[in-house]
Amino acid sequence: MQIYFSPTSPYVRKCLVAAHELGLDGRVRLLPSNANPVTRDRDLIAKNPLGKVPTFITDDGLVLYDSRVICEYLDDLAKGSLFPAAGNERWRALTLQSLGDGILDAALLARYEDVARPENLRWADWRAGQLDKATTSIDHLEDDPALLGGPLNIGTIAVACALWYLDLRFTDFDWRAVHPKVAAWYEEARKRPSLGATWSL
Amino acid sequence: MQIYFSPTSPYVRKCLVAAHELGLDGRVRLLPSNANPVTRDRDLIAKNPLGKVPTFITDDGLVLYDSRVICEYLDDLAKGSLFPAAGNERWRALTLQSLGDGILDAALLARYEDVARPENLRWADWRAGQLDKATTSIDHLEDDPALLGGPLNIGTIAVACALWYLDLRFTDFDWRAVHPKVAAWYEEARKRPSLGATWSL
Repeated sequence: MQIYFSPTSPYVRKCLVAAHELGLDGRVRLLPSNANPVTRDRDLIAKNPLGKVPTFITDDGLVLYDSRVICEYLDDLAKGSLFPAAGNERWRALTLQSLGDGILDAALLARYEDVARPENLRWADWRAGQLDKATTSIDHLEDDPALLGGPLNIGTIAVACALWYLDLRFTDFDWRAVHPKVAAWYEEARKRPSLGATWSL
Repeated sequence: MQIYFSPTSPYVRKCLVAAHELGLDGRVRLLPSNANPVTRDRDLIAKNPLGKVPTFITDDGLVLYDSRVICEYLDDLAKGSLFPAAGNERWRALTLQSLGDGILDAALLARYEDVARPENLRWADWRAGQLDKATTSIDHLEDDPALLGGPLNIGTIAVACALWYLDLRFTDFDWRAVHPKVAAWYEEARKRPSLGATWSL
């Protein structure tokens, strides 16, 4: 199995955390990529026309994207339980995954605003609106910390990757100050080998 | 069941198309919303901290988002087959959904650039890069039109909603001219009552 990789992509990280939790990390080979929303990577586009990472290739050559599909595939392959099979437990885990991914989508847009867009074309209200999505989402978790309880699943992995990315890219975005319960959960969660791992080609 | 609604949201449309295909459309009540990435809708945030539509409420009060989760829930509820249960058929349909959703994510970013961002802050290369994602994605379907074959599933619904949105918002983006096979597929697909339907509060 192969995955197009970027060391700072939070969505690649999400897949690699899932693979690690499922005991599959040794079977996934990392492939280099130059994904970029403006200067697009034509080699990557040949596999995934959206030109985004993660893009995944199964052992029988099937190309899968995006991170949600890749993670569910890995869970199915390993007969794992990161994706609850049915009922409200499944819908809760998948909605929590949407929340984590939604924080990431917003954080990536704020990041592009900060570093990709020419300085004279940046719009402070857009950046603030995106980061406010992260704030109101972490507020929601702080108000109902049971959402983060129980065994790790695809929802809590997505949230952990989102918090990792906020720390990586927005060092002034001090989410811990007003979200002590989420901070305490994350301090424990990141001790897991899967979440503490670093990856490089 | 209830769904926070906007008549021009392609992701809301995707859920309503799925509901219609599954015979559930009469059971889903539409709720008004003012989702906006900059001036955020606080009533909506109280249900979904990302403040986005679609946000869905089940009959037993569970709040679900985003469109992928809502559509899978509806399919499960109706015992439908929009989401193949297992195997490569499932991974292909889910990856096609990622492709359709990826076109939409890109198109929405281009749209925000055109109408939400102040004119003096617009970045032509960003807009072009986003619309190029749509082009290379439709190229991929044109090269392998079998991807669109067979009974409607969540992948082909997502692609149809993406083409609908491109027609709605980018009248100069003449994707049909260089993608005749995709155009022929869409002309047939949009005759389905679910895809031809319009919705209003």
